[in-house]
Amino acid sequence: MDLSLIAQSAKKASIRLAAADTKKKNNALKAISNAIKQRTNEILEANKLDIDKATDEKISVALLKRLKFDEHKIKEVCHGIENTIGLDDPEGKTQYAIELDKGLELYRVTCPIGVIGVIFESRPDALVQISTLCLKSGNAVLLKGGTEAANTNQKLYEIINEATLKAGIPENWIQNLQTREDVKAMLSLDKYIDLLIPRGSNQFVRYIMDNTNIPVLGHADGICHVYVDEQADIEMAIKITVDSKTQYAAVCNSAETLLVHKNIAKKFLPQIKETLEAKGVELRGCEKTRTIIDIKAADEIDWATEYLAEILSIRVVDSIDEAIDHINTYGSHHTDAIITQSSTLAAEFMQLVDSANVFVNASTRFSDGFRYGLGAEVGISTNKIHARGPVGLEGLVIYKWKLVGSGQIVADYAGKNAKPFTHKKLKKDFQV
Amino acid sequence: MDLSLIAQSAKKASIRLAAADTKKKNNALKAISNAIKQRTNEILEANKLDIDKATDEKISVALLKRLKFDEHKIKEVCHGIENTIGLDDPEGKTQYAIELDKGLELYRVTCPIGVIGVIFESRPDALVQISTLCLKSGNAVLLKGGTEAANTNQKLYEIINEATLKAGIPENWIQNLQTREDVKAMLSLDKYIDLLIPRGSNQFVRYIMDNTNIPVLGHADGICHVYVDEQADIEMAIKITVDSKTQYAAVCNSAETLLVHKNIAKKFLPQIKETLEAKGVELRGCEKTRTIIDIKAADEIDWATEYLAEILSIRVVDSIDEAIDHINTYGSHHTDAIITQSSTLAAEFMQLVDSANVFVNASTRFSDGFRYGLGAEVGISTNKIHARGPVGLEGLVIYKWKLVGSGQIVADYAGKNAKPFTHKKLKKDFQV
Repeated sequence: MDLSLIAQSAKKASIRLAAADTKKKNNALKAISNAIKQRTNEILEANKLDIDKATDEKISVALLKRLKFDEHKIKEVCHGIENTIGLDDPEGKTQYAIELDKGLELYRVTCPIGVIGVIFESRPDALVQISTLCLKSGNAVLLKGGTEAANTNQKLYEIINEATLKAGIPENWIQNLQTREDVKAMLSLDKYIDLLIPRGSNQFVRYIMDNTNIPVLGHADGICHVYVDEQADIEMAIKITVDSKTQYAAVCNSAETLLVHKNIAKKFLPQIKETLEAKGVELRGCEKTRTIIDIKAADEIDWATEYLAEILSIRVVDSIDEAIDHINTYGSHHTDAIITQSSTLAAEFMQLVDSANVFVNASTRFSDGFRYGLGAEVGISTNKIHARGPVGLEGLVIYKWKLVGSGQIVADYAGKNAKPFTHKKLKKDFQV
Repeated sequence: MDLSLIAQSAKKASIRLAAADTKKKNNALKAISNAIKQRTNEILEANKLDIDKATDEKISVALLKRLKFDEHKIKEVCHGIENTIGLDDPEGKTQYAIELDKGLELYRVTCPIGVIGVIFESRPDALVQISTLCLKSGNAVLLKGGTEAANTNQKLYEIINEATLKAGIPENWIQNLQTREDVKAMLSLDKYIDLLIPRGSNQFVRYIMDNTNIPVLGHADGICHVYVDEQADIEMAIKITVDSKTQYAAVCNSAETLLVHKNIAKKFLPQIKETLEAKGVELRGCEKTRTIIDIKAADEIDWATEYLAEILSIRVVDSIDEAIDHINTYGSHHTDAIITQSSTLAAEFMQLVDSANVFVNASTRFSDGFRYGLGAEVGISTNKIHARGPVGLEGLVIYKWKLVGSGQIVADYAGKNAKPFTHKKLKKDFQV
């Protein structure tokens, strides 16, 4: 079937799905969770096909680990669905209500975005997570997972599709795309697809961002910084630097560069070197750093690199301004932290660092939807519009303006004898 | 000077501008208004150069009218600036505050987007309006106006730049681009430009949207509909249809297509024909329409055309569902109205029509920032993310997540002995 017809049918479904109430959507979510539990064996069988094929093709252990969808993972995704059922429905909220004139009331009410295209690499749990978040927020979804997980993804899609159809959700709200060509075709379907959410490596996300006119929610790089100010508590600075770098090095919110104020460098650098090297972290430093501690040299490329590994570049700076400039120049506007006892400098840092998440005296690793209390995470965005940082269900809705009149025309409010608008704020929600 | 260096300097300025408080920004706005008044003669002289050149080149009367920047227009833009001074500053608002744990507080605080690229056709008043809105919201702005207004635009830019520099706003926050090549170059500067706002014809906006990876705020077409339901009050339906089509036909929120329920068509169509033809409106109808009234035939192309002129296409539909399908298929998701006495059908229409503005018993012409009480309008957006419909100052801000800790690390909240998060909502604003 032609992808543009598929996308068109998803668009049609999205209109009807937007009208589903919270109860219907929650019942459908419950039905998905039940069906996944009941059909665990089918899922395990499908996953075995993928794992066997991947093993034959000698794919990396890391990839195999992401691909594996066992009973533990099934339990986890079902727990995630239960959690999503408990979340507040982001749709149908009145954000703004104003009387333009007597009998002419305007409401701004949240509504689903429409059709979300989700392109993800191997992890099949991403399919369940993102499609249930789309359902909760009333959006249709087109899924394209990694080919190495094709059997598992197709099975999960079938289970979700059947369970939601029975629960009265409009058909075609969820569709599973199969081929690599589909990804390319998706990128040009801005007529039907309203938002793309890519999940995968930074090269993968960058490719999506560079090759579509559809808005993309996500981030390519996560080049995060810890800046140790001259007024830092050294013990705290060590603890936070170690956590930011080593608590989980392979993820976007781990630190890649450590900036150190020159007045604290002599005291701080030898201690952090000892601690990080004991944990197997490779250090690379600027010239000034290397006059204090004996480590490899860092160059321009290091400042702009997301290692995603146990490597940390270090630069000594003359001032907080230099630190802020470095972060704004080389960073990826994701998450950056200052360690300082000065609330003035903390405020300056948070004001001038142009990143989605700016932290004082806390690890960069806190940058995450669950830790933020959003309940579920659609992804982390470094966009400058719509949604920034960890994005919860709120990021999957937009709004409509609803104007309810009683025959008013603009001619009466224009020209010489124009009626004035009352523009009186209303304290009520939109109701039919 | 190379455009990427210009954009880079604007980006640097935007960081400092974001830190300017409301008082400083309002003083700068007042300084702009004063300078425009004081230097009226210089502006008139610059505008005369443009008008003379345009007259020599025999440009259209409509274009000349848009180009003209006289004392009346100067008064109007200064009044607009006074109005903007009075608006609430959208920056620095705490949207969300939550305690993650004792001594670890998270705030979501609004902030400017960064650098806004504004590309507009002839009207010089657009330059003043949009740059003062950017200033109020703390954004830097790169301006590219129509070449036919080059002298007026350059003069207005100089006046604004000088006035704001004196008022302490960072240099390079506003820059005026000169050549057509600059537009093309701008479209690829997604590293420095965060949002594009194109103002001009639909072809022009479509060109911008199709040729950049930078998010675009705006709308190409405005194909708006009036649907006269079988339960409409006929007198009201006539009044609203006439206003929606003729109150100002050349703008995006005027109606292009009239949909009429079959059960009211015989009564309604002859009356609307008489009224609209008396006002010089050309009517084009579907087959069913033409069995009732004698007008030209409409075809598929008519349904998808924004006439921006006194032409109206008419289609008879069998049901409200058919009307909704027509609007979602051929419309531009801008503004659509239903005329009905049934609140159930009104609700259905507002729910299922996928447009930025959905109206009941009111003219489509109400779709406008000033009429909506937003105070000032950045533009009208048909985007499905960030901002939709008439966009006020709120559309020029995004937010940052600010986390204030006291040494917390993620390792303590992970693994077997993980500390729990408190996730306690806080009722306070972010303060240093």
